[in-house]
Amino acid sequence: MPNLLVTSSAVSGKFGALTPYAKVHSLDEIDEKALDRLLPSIDCILVQAFWPDSLTPERISRMTRLRFIQSGWAGVNHIPFKHLGKRVVVSSNAGAFSTGVAEFAFALMLTAAKRVVKLDYALRTGEFDPSDWGNLFREVVVLHGRTLGILGYGGIGKAVGSLGRALGMNLIAFSRHPGKEEGVQIFHGDEGLLRLIKKSDAIVIALPLSKLTVGLIGTAELAAMKPEAILVNIARAEIVDEEALYRHMVKSPKFTYATDVWQIKRGKETYSSKFPFLKLRNFIGTPHVAGGSSSLTGEPGKTAIDNLLLFLKGKTPRNIVDPSEYV
Amino acid sequence: MPNLLVTSSAVSGKFGALTPYAKVHSLDEIDEKALDRLLPSIDCILVQAFWPDSLTPERISRMTRLRFIQSGWAGVNHIPFKHLGKRVVVSSNAGAFSTGVAEFAFALMLTAAKRVVKLDYALRTGEFDPSDWGNLFREVVVLHGRTLGILGYGGIGKAVGSLGRALGMNLIAFSRHPGKEEGVQIFHGDEGLLRLIKKSDAIVIALPLSKLTVGLIGTAELAAMKPEAILVNIARAEIVDEEALYRHMVKSPKFTYATDVWQIKRGKETYSSKFPFLKLRNFIGTPHVAGGSSSLTGEPGKTAIDNLLLFLKGKTPRNIVDPSEYV
Repeated sequence: MPNLLVTSSAVSGKFGALTPYAKVHSLDEIDEKALDRLLPSIDCILVQAFWPDSLTPERISRMTRLRFIQSGWAGVNHIPFKHLGKRVVVSSNAGAFSTGVAEFAFALMLTAAKRVVKLDYALRTGEFDPSDWGNLFREVVVLHGRTLGILGYGGIGKAVGSLGRALGMNLIAFSRHPGKEEGVQIFHGDEGLLRLIKKSDAIVIALPLSKLTVGLIGTAELAAMKPEAILVNIARAEIVDEEALYRHMVKSPKFTYATDVWQIKRGKETYSSKFPFLKLRNFIGTPHVAGGSSSLTGEPGKTAIDNLLLFLKGKTPRNIVDPSEYV
Repeated sequence: MPNLLVTSSAVSGKFGALTPYAKVHSLDEIDEKALDRLLPSIDCILVQAFWPDSLTPERISRMTRLRFIQSGWAGVNHIPFKHLGKRVVVSSNAGAFSTGVAEFAFALMLTAAKRVVKLDYALRTGEFDPSDWGNLFREVVVLHGRTLGILGYGGIGKAVGSLGRALGMNLIAFSRHPGKEEGVQIFHGDEGLLRLIKKSDAIVIALPLSKLTVGLIGTAELAAMKPEAILVNIARAEIVDEEALYRHMVKSPKFTYATDVWQIKRGKETYSSKFPFLKLRNFIGTPHVAGGSSSLTGEPGKTAIDNLLLFLKGKTPRNIVDPSEYV
């Protein structure tokens, strides 16, 4: 029977479905010695959160039977591709978080459009001046009839799109895949990205972080945005160049950046930045809770386990990623 | 030609369509003397915001030709019904703000569900403790599959409903009007209200303020809510008993009240309360910007003028209200 190593996390699935097909080992429940004994017989890994520190490159080299890694997360940029043998297939959990994360993206977009954080703060601190009301409500944006640009038109991007359509927004999307979809204009390439950005009132980043997308939104892309554009990031912080972003935000007080994601340093999410974004009033931040809260619905755990079952039954798993985009 | 008096405000319409049918007088542009001369010849009034202080009961009694008042707002609780003669017909601007105000209600509901204000504040102040992350994200609610209770199933209520449906929420509504709608269970009466409240994960108040709805949400209704319910008010503050609300919020920290509306004292919105709601972390407040920002789309101004035209052309205006609900 194949051996499955499960790394611990918030994204807990129900493993009962797996036990007829694999012996399940929980990384949290074995000591270093037992782990070392187990390494040569591990066939597959379910990585439920960050790649664990204990699975060092040296230990990976001893997992000679390893053939499959299932990510509990939709993104796989935390998987140490350069240390994996060529026979190891990696699957993302793309799509599993679409409903919950799209809902979160939508919450950030609406919070930004309606200036909720800023207005609530002004009321709380007593900064709100009723005589300024006539100017204040003019900053509040009705999204109906405005244009929503979606970067990355996969599971989350499409779910964001269908919510945008319900609000009566015009949809445009940026995708590296060719393809048509009714009612959505799709843009490709660097030129396409800039054209989409210029047209958009709100932009939601729903791309995977890879070699192709790191720093995708830089000085030129930010400069192309409408002055009062709203940029929402529920994907990965590193897709946006943070220095360019900070400069743009200081220069363009009507622009809003709303993010749930933060740069990752040494395998840990920072929830902060060397740039003082948290002092800016046109910044809205949450500590990466969209995915975790979505996992509580049970859906992502179920999807990951279903995909592992495909591997264990000798079938082709879904959402296999191209390692060349990450190494 | 009939004389139309227009009171000033944010909800400015384009009056060109009216000039073939009425002589338009702007209250802001005439002095008290001219107003007094004009009073006996005024046929109709467009009240764009609060009822103006200068139109005192004594002056109203001199408007002997007055037959029609069009409210620029969706609500009409600010119209001095008790001083109006029986021949004066009053129309609300119900429906005109539906798109923008429903969007705002949705923004407050999602901001509350995702704890955006609270989490942003915790990051800004440094209160956020990464080691507490595992508990924090569990407070964040995915609304897909949850139940949305809508109080008042008119223009705004239905627009909120269609957004809720897009999120995959189950819809239930409270209405005084009988009637069926596919996919929405409608509740009636006091018992029905309590049944709706018990079932709802989020409740949006979209009722007009009238004798029938003032204080509708009191101690019993609040006690019937789920502990982590979200109550959104984009209608009128006085529909909720504020003392009962404050007590409930202190007792139930997982409950959230998100409001755009504040009690009106002496014809002015207070944007505050004698109860320290603004010190509570389960409170979200904005200074009544939903309607004003919606009016910037031009739609409410156009709807009010279209309705005035019906009156001026001798037809029956839409949205005539029943004065007995307000006196």
